[in-house]
Amino acid sequence: MQMLITCLYLVGITAEAMTGALAAGRRQMDWFGVMLVASATAIGGGTVRDILLGHYPLGWVRHPEYLMITCTAGVLTTLIAPWVARNRRLFMWLDAIGLVVFSIIGSNVALDMGLPVSIAIVAAVVTGVFGGLLRDLICRQSPLVLHKELYASVSLLSSAVYIGLMKIGLDSVTLVLSTIVIGVTIRMAAVRYSWHLPVFHFADDSALVKAEKK
Amino acid sequence: MQMLITCLYLVGITAEAMTGALAAGRRQMDWFGVMLVASATAIGGGTVRDILLGHYPLGWVRHPEYLMITCTAGVLTTLIAPWVARNRRLFMWLDAIGLVVFSIIGSNVALDMGLPVSIAIVAAVVTGVFGGLLRDLICRQSPLVLHKELYASVSLLSSAVYIGLMKIGLDSVTLVLSTIVIGVTIRMAAVRYSWHLPVFHFADDSALVKAEKK
Amino acid sequence: MQMLITCLYLVGITAEAMTGALAAGRRQMDWFGVMLVASATAIGGGTVRDILLGHYPLGWVRHPEYLMITCTAGVLTTLIAPWVARNRRLFMWLDAIGLVVFSIIGSNVALDMGLPVSIAIVAAVVTGVFGGLLRDLICRQSPLVLHKELYASVSLLSSAVYIGLMKIGLDSVTLVLSTIVIGVTIRMAAVRYSWHLPVFHFADDSALVKAEKK
Repeated sequence: MQMLITCLYLVGITAEAMTGALAAGRRQMDWFGVMLVASATAIGGGTVRDILLGHYPLGWVRHPEYLMITCTAGVLTTLIAPWVARNRRLFMWLDAIGLVVFSIIGSNVALDMGLPVSIAIVAAVVTGVFGGLLRDLICRQSPLVLHKELYASVSLLSSAVYIGLMKIGLDSVTLVLSTIVIGVTIRMAAVRYSWHLPVFHFADDSALVKAEKK
Repeated sequence: MQMLITCLYLVGITAEAMTGALAAGRRQMDWFGVMLVASATAIGGGTVRDILLGHYPLGWVRHPEYLMITCTAGVLTTLIAPWVARNRRLFMWLDAIGLVVFSIIGSNVALDMGLPVSIAIVAAVVTGVFGGLLRDLICRQSPLVLHKELYASVSLLSSAVYIGLMKIGLDSVTLVLSTIVIGVTIRMAAVRYSWHLPVFHFADDSALVKAEKK
Repeated sequence: MQMLITCLYLVGITAEAMTGALAAGRRQMDWFGVMLVASATAIGGGTVRDILLGHYPLGWVRHPEYLMITCTAGVLTTLIAPWVARNRRLFMWLDAIGLVVFSIIGSNVALDMGLPVSIAIVAAVVTGVFGGLLRDLICRQSPLVLHKELYASVSLLSSAVYIGLMKIGLDSVTLVLSTIVIGVTIRMAAVRYSWHLPVFHFADDSALVKAEKK
């Protein structure tokens, strides 16, 4: 079971690293920039989670090979970018699987530390979302995840489903597979039907704004 | 006394979360974005401080209800945004109180860890300032706190006053209340009379360096 | 030997703080902004490294005088900005020395924690590069280090040279001096001959983009 999670995790970080590399390429970064953005996208979420929880050593410090994978995937992407761009659908699936697996891992880290369920869910969302957030901050683009993508919600739901099924006492294989099927289905449905959270649009009364700018 | 600080802290994070939510609304973020920016604004300063000092577990990991409060306050703000915008003066007061309370808490955390006074003051400033800084980074707006607002200075002065009065041996009730009165007074005076630190204007074309912007 | 490294480290953070202050001045920040950007540029790399490695307490928490130095250097720079700007060549040398010294210190921190060589090299690069990255994020300018400057590579090579010579069994004085000479030479040659890593330019085929935006 642990091996399945690890395998899916590796697929997930590879896919995330490749989409991160494309974002770096849109900004004409050099290879170092590509490797940094690829790695931040793929393992930044887990890194932020571990720093927030004080969960040391970080995953990639214990397993430097993860960092090698994301850097290699990033540089490789510079060679096969057109193929990656053409296979958007494939990457959407890999990204969805990665998101759910990241959420499962994030929940597990918090639960293993003896933290409450609410923090386990927060840990899942941080793991799932902060990679993309860091990518967008470094690439200086408006964080998509904060606007109209049902990404954090899928992470939250996956984590809730996972913890809920765990409480029922499901065996770990069924538990992980069910969570992945449910989570990926929600994610792909969200993409397919453009589900999204309500957007908050706030425009300052311009007179007020001017008064406060003085 | 501890309860008074906790109460004022809760008022402070609620007010900060609401102003954070407005900033998210100006960027048309969805509810997740609103909750993230609200939480980052309200408890991001304390989080950065605790990470820098290695002070684990973080406040909101120990008390997940703080996170619930900031998320709820953020989403609530989407419903009552015009009321919040109309009551700018009220929020300016709450923000000033929050700033001083954050500074007191930040100083206490560092002093309780046995760190020197200079680091306690830095901890206070980080607690007071980094929430707004994170908000501005996520919302991709120029950090106001770095330009013309006497915010960091108020935090620094509040912390210095607090530690100074503590050394004199004031009892804790008088100590906290005096610090709040002095800190809030300085903050509101700074807003009222537009006090600000000297601005450093540097233009690259060599000799055209002005010591200060007009 | 330790004293030579400390001296060069102090020269390095002073020089970095001064260039950070100039970046803040280009954004018309106030004195607090200047001190924050100066400090982030000078000691932000080491701070990020220590947080990633869980290496507490942070350097400047143990030695608050480092922070005093960067803040003072920052504010001083507002007074002598034209002189700093005129002496670009001097600062390029100091910056190169600082970069190599930061890389040596970063490698040492990781090796002293018993971490593998690959992580020691990552620690060196983080120490060398993240100060400038933080500066550019706070000043909201495109991170130069990710585009065309051979900065991360010099840090990586310096760290590799340092660890390689260490394995050979060089005494520590020769070890540090050789690394500095080699690293600074590479850095200055990179500047002189405009060496840079390959740049990855990726432009979305706009038809594809439209398809994916739907």
